[in-house]
Amino acid sequence: MSSQIGRRRQAALSGGRDGYKERRKKLIDAAASVFREKGYGAASLGDVANALGTDRASLYYYVSSKEELFHAVVFQAAEDNVVRAEAIRDGDLPVARKLAALVRELMLSYEKHYPYLFVYIQEKMSMFGPEEEGSEWTADMWDLNRRYEDVVLAVVQQGLDEGVFKALATPRVLSYGVIGMVNWSHRWFRPEGSVTAREVGDAFAEIVLKGLLADPDSWSPDEDA
Amino acid sequence: MSSQIGRRRQAALSGGRDGYKERRKKLIDAAASVFREKGYGAASLGDVANALGTDRASLYYYVSSKEELFHAVVFQAAEDNVVRAEAIRDGDLPVARKLAALVRELMLSYEKHYPYLFVYIQEKMSMFGPEEEGSEWTADMWDLNRRYEDVVLAVVQQGLDEGVFKALATPRVLSYGVIGMVNWSHRWFRPEGSVTAREVGDAFAEIVLKGLLADPDSWSPDEDA
Repeated sequence: MSSQIGRRRQAALSGGRDGYKERRKKLIDAAASVFREKGYGAASLGDVANALGTDRASLYYYVSSKEELFHAVVFQAAEDNVVRAEAIRDGDLPVARKLAALVRELMLSYEKHYPYLFVYIQEKMSMFGPEEEGSEWTADMWDLNRRYEDVVLAVVQQGLDEGVFKALATPRVLSYGVIGMVNWSHRWFRPEGSVTAREVGDAFAEIVLKGLLADPDSWSPDEDA
Repeated sequence: MSSQIGRRRQAALSGGRDGYKERRKKLIDAAASVFREKGYGAASLGDVANALGTDRASLYYYVSSKEELFHAVVFQAAEDNVVRAEAIRDGDLPVARKLAALVRELMLSYEKHYPYLFVYIQEKMSMFGPEEEGSEWTADMWDLNRRYEDVVLAVVQQGLDEGVFKALATPRVLSYGVIGMVNWSHRWFRPEGSVTAREVGDAFAEIVLKGLLADPDSWSPDEDA
């Protein structure tokens, strides 16, 4: 039975029926809320069904397991981060503002998507490319990570090209420094803690900008805070 | 037999016989070299025995498994980091130089102790305190991590108290930002790469210092580079 449901699920997904995709999107959003409220470990498919006012069995038409739901939730959040970051990169802000916006948005996303993006960073983020684990999801996530890193790299490169940033190291090292300062928050940031993601993002953006700008005094944190 | 060896090992260790401890220290140093050369996954106890010119069986008088050797190697490296960091904190450098030295030393240690400190950060570092896993080693490592964080926190606090650093966020958030920028290197830094740990440490130290100093122009990177 389960494999028959699996075939119907696959057919509905790849057939691109709008109703199906919309309902699956609603399911992913509901799962994200449940993961936020109960934590990923404690949450069950039954909780997600309850939140949607349906039953567990109906969920299997859309996803095969809690893990698949986790994958879908994480992918949607990470894809959203990449799309926003690419919009910042391609937008009209001065380059220093672009980098500050990237830092702030990423930090805010970890609060918004707590805890499942942190669970992903801690436990599932691939260090060595998609070939190691081999699932389609792992490969897709690897692509998103690369796209995100490429955005930061492009903005850092733009700042160096314009002479606005100092070439303290290679663009790639500088990018990893910026991303790392924010991503390390998966080891300590909790939304219920004493500081908000906005406060953290503002502070880290200022450190990074003052640190990279050829003229640190040209930075004013309040302009777009 | 193995439990008899285990008892002898334990008695020799806790009895504090100098010869035993010295030989065990030599074994740990040899294991560190082997882990560096072959990687932790590929290294075997036989490789470590070869490096010491002895046989596998003789090693069991000192350690029970490759995992125990890994634990000992990581503990020794992390303890060394803490001792050096505490010396920096308690030394006579101006506070900005102290923070820069902490950043540089930590980054250099990841190159010196590659890859096992990175393996530890990626796979074994406890996010939630020692009670979760319960081994003595986990608790000891948790203590070292806390001691290290306390050093950075104390130096940041000193800088804030002296008015040398800006209070962009709480001292704890600023400390995690500094540590995070360096620790994220476990996802990307490789000693055989195109940049050295010294270059990365210098760049990150400058970013952090320019970012935190009330007067960024007071920072000159070359003074103690």
